[in-house]
Amino acid sequence: MSTVLVTGHKNPDTDSIASAIVYAYLKNELGVHAQPVRLGEVNKETAYALDYFQVEAPVFADENVQQGVEELILVDHNEAQQSIDARENFNVIEVIDHHRIANFETMAPLYYRAEPVGCTATILLKLFKENNVDIPKDLAGLMMSAIISDSLLFKSPTCTDEDVQAAKELASIADTNLESYGLNMLKAGADMSDKTADD
Amino acid sequence: MSTVLVTGHKNPDTDSIASAIVYAYLKNELGVHAQPVRLGEVNKETAYALDYFQVEAPVFADENVQQGVEELILVDHNEAQQSIDARENFNVIEVIDHHRIANFETMAPLYYRAEPVGCTATILLKLFKENNVDIPKDLAGLMMSAIISDSLLFKSPTCTDEDVQAAKELASIADTNLESYGLNMLKAGADMSDKTADD
Ligand SMILES: [Mn+2]
Ligand SMILES: [Mn+2]
Ligand SMILES: [Mn+2]
Ligand SMILES: [Mn+2]
Repeated sequence: MSTVLVTGHKNPDTDSIASAIVYAYLKNELGVHAQPVRLGEVNKETAYALDYFQVEAPVFADENVQQGVEELILVDHNEAQQSIDARENFNVIEVIDHHRIANFETMAPLYYRAEPVGCTATILLKLFKENNVDIPKDLAGLMMSAIISDSLLFKSPTCTDEDVQAAKELASIADTNLESYGLNMLKAGADMSDKTADD
Repeated sequence: MSTVLVTGHKNPDTDSIASAIVYAYLKNELGVHAQPVRLGEVNKETAYALDYFQVEAPVFADENVQQGVEELILVDHNEAQQSIDARENFNVIEVIDHHRIANFETMAPLYYRAEPVGCTATILLKLFKENNVDIPKDLAGLMMSAIISDSLLFKSPTCTDEDVQAAKELASIADTNLESYGLNMLKAGADMSDKTADD
Protein backbone atom coordinates (compact mmCIF):
# COMPACT_ATOMS: atom_id res chain seq x y z
CA MET A 1 0.00 0.00 0.00
CA SER A 2 1.44 3.40 -0.92
CA THR A 3 1.98 5.96 1.81
CA VAL A 4 -0.05 9.13 2.17
CA LEU A 5 1.74 12.03 3.83
CA VAL A 6 -0.23 14.09 6.35
CA THR A 7 1.17 17.60 6.58
CA GLY A 8 0.48 20.89 8.30
CA HIS A 9 1.80 24.23 7.11
CA LYS A 10 5.29 25.70 6.82
CA ASN A 11 6.68 27.31 9.96
CA PRO A 12 4.59 24.78 11.88
CA ASP A 13 2.72 25.63 15.07
CA THR A 14 1.40 23.20 17.66
CA ASP A 15 -1.87 22.67 15.75
CA SER A 16 -0.05 21.78 12.52
CA ILE A 17 2.25 19.28 14.25
CA ALA A 18 -0.37 17.77 16.56
CA SER A 19 -3.04 17.51 13.87
CA ALA A 20 -0.64 15.78 11.46
CA ILE A 21 0.27 13.19 14.11
CA VAL A 22 -3.29 12.71 15.29
CA TYR A 23 -5.00 12.55 11.90
CA ALA A 24 -2.37 10.13 10.57
CA TYR A 25 -3.18 7.93 13.58
CA LEU A 26 -6.90 8.06 12.78
CA LYS A 27 -6.31 7.27 9.08
CA ASN A 28 -4.15 4.29 10.04
CA GLU A 29 -6.90 3.06 12.34
CA LEU A 30 -9.21 3.30 9.32
CA GLY A 31 -6.84 1.25 7.16
CA VAL A 32 -4.94 4.00 5.31
CA HIS A 33 -1.14 3.94 5.47
CA ALA A 34 -0.56 7.54 6.51
CA GLN A 35 2.65 9.16 7.74
CA PRO A 36 2.74 12.50 9.56
CA VAL A 37 5.40 14.94 8.37
CA ARG A 38 6.47 18.48 9.19
CA LEU A 39 7.58 21.32 6.91
CA GLY A 40 9.89 23.05 9.36
CA GLU A 41 11.44 23.03 12.83
CA VAL A 42 9.35 22.13 15.87
CA ASN A 43 8.98 25.29 17.96
CA LYS A 44 9.54 25.39 21.72
CA GLU A 45 5.90 25.35 22.66
CA THR A 46 5.28 22.28 20.51
CA ALA A 47 8.44 20.62 21.83
CA TYR A 48 7.09 21.10 25.36
CA ALA A 49 3.82 19.39 24.42
CA LEU A 50 5.53 16.49 22.60
CA ASP A 51 7.89 15.97 25.51
CA TYR A 52 5.14 16.18 28.13
CA PHE A 53 2.99 13.58 26.38
CA GLN A 54 6.00 11.55 25.20
CA VAL A 55 5.14 11.62 21.49
CA GLU A 56 7.78 11.79 18.77
CA ALA A 57 7.82 14.72 16.36
CA PRO A 58 6.87 13.93 12.75
CA VAL A 59 9.81 13.52 10.36
CA PHE A 60 10.81 16.46 8.19
CA ALA A 61 9.35 16.09 4.69
CA ASP A 62 12.64 15.91 2.82
CA GLU A 63 13.25 14.35 -0.59
CA ASN A 64 13.73 10.90 0.91
CA VAL A 65 10.42 11.01 2.73
CA GLN A 66 8.63 12.28 -0.39
CA GLN A 67 10.15 9.52 -2.54
CA GLY A 68 7.39 7.48 -4.21
CA VAL A 69 4.61 9.40 -2.47
CA GLU A 70 1.68 10.43 -4.67
CA GLU A 71 -0.96 11.54 -2.20
CA LEU A 72 -1.18 14.22 0.46
CA ILE A 73 -3.58 15.05 3.24
CA LEU A 74 -3.41 18.67 4.38
CA VAL A 75 -4.21 19.71 7.92
CA ASP A 76 -4.44 23.23 9.38
CA HIS A 77 -3.98 24.99 6.01
CA ASN A 78 -5.00 24.91 2.38
CA GLU A 79 -3.26 27.82 0.65
CA ALA A 80 -0.51 26.78 -1.77
CA GLN A 81 2.09 29.24 -0.49
CA GLN A 82 1.83 27.78 3.05
CA SER A 83 2.09 24.22 1.81
CA ILE A 84 4.72 21.71 0.73
CA ASP A 85 6.90 22.86 -2.20
CA ALA A 86 5.84 21.56 -5.60
CA ARG A 87 2.45 20.57 -4.30
CA GLU A 88 1.29 20.26 -7.89
CA ASN A 89 3.27 16.98 -8.06
CA PHE A 90 0.88 15.36 -5.56
CA ASN A 91 -2.82 14.60 -5.38
CA VAL A 92 -4.41 16.24 -2.36
CA ILE A 93 -6.99 13.68 -1.30
CA GLU A 94 -8.17 15.33 1.93
CA VAL A 95 -8.05 18.63 3.76
CA ILE A 96 -8.97 19.19 7.42
CA ASP A 97 -8.79 22.88 8.22
CA HIS A 98 -10.27 25.91 9.97
CA HIS A 99 -9.06 28.75 7.73
CA ARG A 100 -10.53 30.63 4.79
CA ILE A 101 -10.10 28.88 1.42
CA ALA A 102 -7.79 30.51 -1.13
CA ASN A 103 -5.21 29.45 -3.70
CA PHE A 104 -6.51 25.93 -3.56
CA GLU A 105 -7.82 23.75 -6.35
CA THR A 106 -7.92 20.10 -7.29
CA MET A 107 -8.40 18.07 -10.43
CA ALA A 108 -10.61 15.49 -8.71
CA PRO A 109 -13.23 15.32 -5.97
CA LEU A 110 -11.80 15.04 -2.45
CA TYR A 111 -12.74 14.98 1.20
CA TYR A 112 -12.62 18.58 2.41
CA ARG A 113 -13.64 19.33 5.95
CA ALA A 114 -13.40 22.90 7.09
CA GLU A 115 -15.28 24.36 10.01
CA PRO A 116 -15.21 27.94 11.34
CA VAL A 117 -13.73 26.96 14.70
CA GLY A 118 -10.52 28.02 16.41
CA CYS A 119 -8.39 24.92 15.87
CA THR A 120 -8.02 21.90 13.57
CA ALA A 121 -7.88 19.60 16.60
CA THR A 122 -11.45 20.58 17.48
CA ILE A 123 -12.58 19.20 14.12
CA LEU A 124 -10.44 16.08 14.57
CA LEU A 125 -12.24 15.30 17.83
CA LYS A 126 -15.50 15.16 15.83
CA LEU A 127 -13.90 12.91 13.22
CA PHE A 128 -12.83 10.39 15.88
CA LYS A 129 -16.42 10.32 17.14
CA GLU A 130 -17.94 10.06 13.67
CA ASN A 131 -15.66 7.09 12.97
CA ASN A 132 -16.11 5.50 16.40
CA VAL A 133 -12.37 5.43 17.09
CA ASP A 134 -11.07 5.98 20.64
CA ILE A 135 -8.44 8.68 21.17
CA PRO A 136 -5.30 7.47 22.97
CA LYS A 137 -4.43 9.47 26.08
CA ASP A 138 -1.19 10.92 24.66
CA LEU A 139 -2.85 12.07 21.44
CA ALA A 140 -5.71 13.63 23.41
CA GLY A 141 -3.02 15.60 25.24
CA LEU A 142 -1.57 16.84 21.94
CA MET A 143 -5.02 17.84 20.65
CA MET A 144 -5.70 19.73 23.87
CA SER A 145 -2.31 21.44 23.44
CA ALA A 146 -3.23 22.50 19.90
CA ILE A 147 -6.46 24.12 21.10
CA ILE A 148 -4.67 25.88 23.96
CA SER A 149 -2.07 27.15 21.47
CA ASP A 150 -4.45 28.38 18.73
CA SER A 151 -6.82 29.94 21.28
CA LEU A 152 -4.16 31.29 23.69
CA LEU A 153 -5.98 29.45 26.46
CA PHE A 154 -9.41 30.53 25.10
CA LYS A 155 -8.54 34.23 24.94
CA SER A 156 -8.29 34.51 21.15
CA PRO A 157 -11.30 36.03 19.32
CA THR A 158 -11.27 33.02 16.96
CA CYS A 159 -11.99 30.66 19.87
CA THR A 160 -15.52 29.21 19.84
CA ASP A 161 -17.61 27.39 22.46
CA GLU A 162 -16.91 24.22 20.54
CA ASP A 163 -13.15 24.69 21.05
CA VAL A 164 -13.61 25.20 24.78
CA GLN A 165 -15.81 22.11 25.13
CA ALA A 166 -13.39 20.05 23.01
CA ALA A 167 -10.41 21.12 25.12
CA LYS A 168 -12.22 20.17 28.33
CA GLU A 169 -13.18 16.77 26.94
CA LEU A 170 -9.61 16.15 25.73
CA ALA A 171 -8.13 17.27 29.06
CA SER A 172 -10.31 14.69 30.75
CA ILE A 173 -9.13 11.92 28.38
CA ALA A 174 -5.52 13.09 28.83
CA ASP A 175 -6.03 13.31 32.60
CA THR A 176 -4.35 16.70 32.63
CA ASN A 177 -5.17 20.01 34.31
CA LEU A 178 -6.07 22.30 31.43
CA GLU A 179 -5.21 25.63 33.10
CA SER A 180 -1.92 24.80 34.73
CA TYR A 181 -0.65 22.67 31.84
CA GLY A 182 -1.79 25.35 29.40
CA LEU A 183 0.03 28.16 31.17
CA ASN A 184 3.22 26.10 31.37
CA MET A 185 3.02 25.21 27.69
CA LEU A 186 2.44 28.81 26.61
CA LYS A 187 5.26 29.91 28.89
CA ALA A 188 7.61 27.32 27.32
CA GLY A 189 6.72 28.76 23.91
CA ALA A 190 7.44 32.30 25.03
CA ASP A 191 10.77 31.32 26.63
CA MET A 192 13.47 33.60 25.24
CA SER A 193 16.35 32.18 27.27
CA ASP A 194 18.27 30.67 24.36
CA LYS A 195 17.62 33.49 21.94
CA THR A 196 20.17 36.17 21.15
CA ALA A 197 19.39 39.83 20.73
CA ASP A 198 19.40 39.27 16.97
CA ASP A 199 16.48 36.80 16.88
CA MET B 1 -32.94 37.34 11.55
CA SER B 2 -31.56 37.81 8.05
CA THR B 3 -32.20 35.15 5.44
CA VAL B 4 -29.50 32.86 4.06
CA LEU B 5 -30.10 31.61 0.52
CA VAL B 6 -29.30 27.96 -0.19
CA THR B 7 -28.49 27.46 -3.85
CA GLY B 8 -27.39 24.74 -6.24
CA HIS B 9 -25.75 25.41 -9.61
CA LYS B 10 -26.98 27.01 -12.80
CA ASN B 11 -28.88 24.76 -15.19
CA PRO B 12 -30.02 22.86 -12.08
CA ASP B 13 -30.30 19.09 -11.95
CA THR B 14 -32.26 17.03 -9.43
CA ASP B 15 -29.38 17.03 -6.92
CA SER B 16 -29.06 20.83 -7.00
CA ILE B 17 -32.80 21.36 -6.49
CA ALA B 18 -33.32 18.60 -3.94
CA SER B 19 -30.20 19.45 -1.92
CA ALA B 20 -31.17 23.14 -1.74
CA ILE B 21 -34.63 22.25 -0.41
CA VAL B 22 -33.37 19.60 1.97
CA TYR B 23 -30.40 21.48 3.39
CA ALA B 24 -32.50 24.62 3.89
CA TYR B 25 -34.90 22.43 5.88
CA LEU B 26 -32.05 21.11 8.04
CA LYS B 27 -30.65 24.61 8.64
CA ASN B 28 -34.10 25.86 9.68
CA GLU B 29 -34.39 22.94 12.11
CA LEU B 30 -31.04 24.08 13.51
CA GLY B 31 -32.29 27.65 13.97
CA VAL B 32 -30.97 29.33 10.80
CA HIS B 33 -33.45 31.18 8.59
CA ALA B 34 -32.57 29.57 5.26
CA GLN B 35 -34.46 29.78 1.97
CA PRO B 36 -33.85 27.38 -0.92
CA VAL B 37 -33.55 29.00 -4.35
CA ARG B 38 -32.86 27.85 -7.90
CA LEU B 39 -30.73 29.43 -10.63
CA GLY B 40 -32.74 28.14 -13.61
CA GLU B 41 -35.75 26.16 -14.80
CA VAL B 42 -36.71 22.92 -13.09
CA ASN B 43 -36.07 20.10 -15.59
CA LYS B 44 -38.58 17.34 -16.32
CA GLU B 45 -36.89 14.71 -14.22
CA THR B 46 -36.82 17.03 -11.21
CA ALA B 47 -40.42 18.09 -11.85
CA TYR B 48 -41.42 14.41 -11.74
CA ALA B 49 -39.73 13.98 -8.35
CA LEU B 50 -41.21 17.18 -6.89
CA ASP B 51 -44.66 16.22 -8.10
CA TYR B 52 -44.37 12.63 -6.86
CA PHE B 53 -43.36 13.69 -3.36
CA GLN B 54 -45.58 16.79 -3.38
CA VAL B 55 -42.83 19.30 -2.64
CA GLU B 56 -42.78 22.81 -4.10
CA ALA B 57 -39.87 23.89 -6.28
CA PRO B 58 -37.57 26.55 -4.78
CA VAL B 59 -38.19 30.10 -5.99
CA PHE B 60 -36.02 31.51 -8.76
CA ALA B 61 -33.23 33.66 -7.29
CA ASP B 62 -34.27 36.93 -8.93
CA GLU B 63 -33.44 40.45 -7.74
CA ASN B 64 -36.41 40.50 -5.39
CA VAL B 65 -35.36 37.30 -3.68
CA GLN B 66 -31.76 38.50 -3.37
CA GLN B 67 -32.87 41.81 -1.86
CA GLY B 68 -31.22 42.35 1.53
CA VAL B 69 -29.54 38.94 1.50
CA GLU B 70 -25.89 38.87 2.57
CA GLU B 71 -25.13 35.19 3.03
CA LEU B 72 -25.17 32.15 0.77
CA ILE B 73 -24.89 28.44 1.27
CA LEU B 74 -23.79 26.54 -1.84
CA VAL B 75 -24.85 22.97 -2.49
CA ASP B 76 -23.74 20.65 -5.32
CA HIS B 77 -21.13 23.08 -6.72
CA ASN B 78 -18.40 25.50 -5.75
CA GLU B 79 -16.95 26.94 -8.97
CA ALA B 80 -17.79 30.60 -9.53
CA GLN B 81 -18.86 30.20 -13.13
CA GLN B 82 -21.54 27.66 -12.13
CA SER B 83 -22.83 29.84 -9.31
CA ILE B 84 -25.11 32.80 -8.77
CA ASP B 85 -24.14 35.93 -10.71
CA ALA B 86 -22.16 38.51 -8.75
CA ARG B 87 -21.34 35.99 -6.05
CA GLU B 88 -18.66 38.38 -4.82
CA ASN B 89 -21.48 40.49 -3.34
CA PHE B 90 -22.31 37.74 -0.85
CA ASN B 91 -20.51 35.89 1.93
CA VAL B 92 -20.46 32.16 1.29
CA ILE B 93 -20.82 30.73 4.78
CA GLU B 94 -21.13 27.04 3.86
CA VAL B 95 -20.55 24.65 0.98
CA ILE B 96 -21.85 21.07 0.76
CA ASP B 97 -20.53 19.44 -2.40
CA HIS B 98 -19.07 16.37 -4.09
CA HIS B 99 -17.05 17.97 -6.90
CA ARG B 100 -13.45 19.03 -7.28
CA ILE B 101 -12.62 22.46 -5.85
CA ALA B 102 -11.71 25.23 -8.30
CA ASN B 103 -12.34 28.94 -8.74
CA PHE B 104 -13.44 29.19 -5.17
CA GLU B 105 -12.12 31.38 -2.41
CA THR B 106 -13.38 33.17 0.66
CA MET B 107 -12.28 36.05 2.86
CA ALA B 108 -13.26 34.26 6.07
CA PRO B 109 -13.33 30.76 7.54
CA LEU B 110 -16.44 28.77 6.61
CA TYR B 111 -18.03 25.35 6.90
CA TYR B 112 -16.96 23.39 3.83
CA ARG B 113 -18.03 19.79 3.54
CA ALA B 114 -17.01 17.96 0.42
CA GLU B 115 -16.80 14.20 0.10
CA PRO B 116 -15.77 12.15 -2.93
CA VAL B 117 -19.17 10.48 -3.31
CA GLY B 118 -21.63 10.44 -6.18
CA CYS B 119 -24.22 12.90 -4.90
CA THR B 120 -24.66 15.82 -2.50
CA ALA B 121 -27.73 14.14 -1.00
CA THR B 122 -25.53 11.28 0.25
CA ILE B 123 -23.55 13.81 2.31
CA LEU B 124 -26.76 15.47 3.52
CA LEU B 125 -27.96 12.16 4.93
CA LYS B 126 -24.84 12.12 7.13
CA LEU B 127 -25.45 15.71 8.23
CA PHE B 128 -28.98 14.87 9.40
CA LYS B 129 -27.53 12.02 11.45
CA GLU B 130 -24.68 14.09 12.86
CA ASN B 131 -27.21 16.70 13.96
CA ASN B 132 -29.79 14.18 15.22
CA VAL B 133 -32.54 15.57 13.00
CA ASP B 134 -35.16 13.25 11.49
CA ILE B 135 -35.69 13.39 7.74
CA PRO B 136 -39.33 13.93 6.71
CA LYS B 137 -40.69 11.29 4.32
CA ASP B 138 -41.12 13.68 1.38
CA LEU B 139 -37.58 15.07 1.71
CA ALA B 140 -36.16 11.55 1.96
CA GLY B 141 -37.91 10.90 -1.37
CA LEU B 142 -36.21 13.92 -2.93
CA MET B 143 -32.80 12.90 -1.59
CA MET B 144 -33.29 9.40 -2.99
CA SER B 145 -34.27 10.99 -6.32
CA ALA B 146 -31.07 13.04 -6.35
CA ILE B 147 -28.93 9.94 -5.84
CA ILE B 148 -30.81 8.05 -8.56
CA SER B 149 -30.30 11.04 -10.88
CA ASP B 150 -26.58 11.64 -10.24
CA SER B 151 -25.80 7.90 -10.33
CA LEU B 152 -28.17 6.95 -13.18
CA LEU B 153 -29.61 4.31 -10.87
CA PHE B 154 -26.12 3.32 -9.60
CA LYS B 155 -24.66 2.80 -13.07
CA SER B 156 -22.43 5.89 -13.13
CA PRO B 157 -18.70 5.37 -12.43
CA THR B 158 -18.90 8.16 -9.83
CA CYS B 159 -21.38 6.13 -7.75
CA THR B 160 -19.92 4.76 -4.49
CA ASP B 161 -21.11 2.11 -2.03
CA GLU B 162 -22.05 4.93 0.27
CA ASP B 163 -24.44 6.34 -2.35
CA VAL B 164 -26.10 2.95 -2.82
CA GLN B 165 -26.53 2.45 0.94
CA ALA B 166 -27.85 6.00 1.35
CA ALA B 167 -30.40 5.53 -1.45
CA LYS B 168 -31.65 2.31 0.11
CA GLU B 169 -31.99 3.92 3.53
CA LEU B 170 -33.81 6.92 2.03
CA ALA B 171 -36.13 4.67 -0.02
CA SER B 172 -37.09 2.95 3.20
CA ILE B 173 -37.86 6.28 4.93
CA ALA B 174 -39.76 7.45 1.84
CA ASP B 175 -41.54 4.09 1.64
CA THR B 176 -40.86 3.95 -2.10
CA ASN B 177 -39.62 1.19 -4.40
CA LEU B 178 -36.18 2.37 -5.48
CA GLU B 179 -35.97 0.49 -8.79
CA SER B 180 -39.43 1.12 -10.21
CA TYR B 181 -39.61 4.72 -9.01
CA GLY B 182 -36.08 5.32 -10.28
CA LEU B 183 -36.80 4.00 -13.75
CA ASN B 184 -39.97 6.09 -13.99
CA MET B 185 -38.14 9.22 -12.84
CA LEU B 186 -35.28 8.75 -15.30
CA LYS B 187 -37.83 8.05 -18.05
CA ALA B 188 -39.69 11.26 -17.21
CA GLY B 189 -36.39 13.12 -17.57
CA ALA B 190 -35.68 11.56 -20.93
CA ASP B 191 -39.21 12.22 -22.22
CA MET B 192 -38.95 14.01 -25.55
CA SER B 193 -42.67 14.21 -26.22
CA ASP B 194 -43.01 17.98 -25.93
CA LYS B 195 -39.76 18.77 -27.65
CA THR B 196 -39.53 19.83 -31.24
CA ALA B 197 -36.91 18.66 -33.70
CA ASP B 198 -35.03 21.92 -33.02
CA ASP B 199 -34.44 21.32 -29.27
MN1 LIG C 1 -1.59 26.74 12.28
MN1 LIG D 1 -4.80 25.92 13.56
MN1 LIG E 1 -25.39 18.78 -10.06
MN1 LIG F 1 -24.59 16.33 -7.64
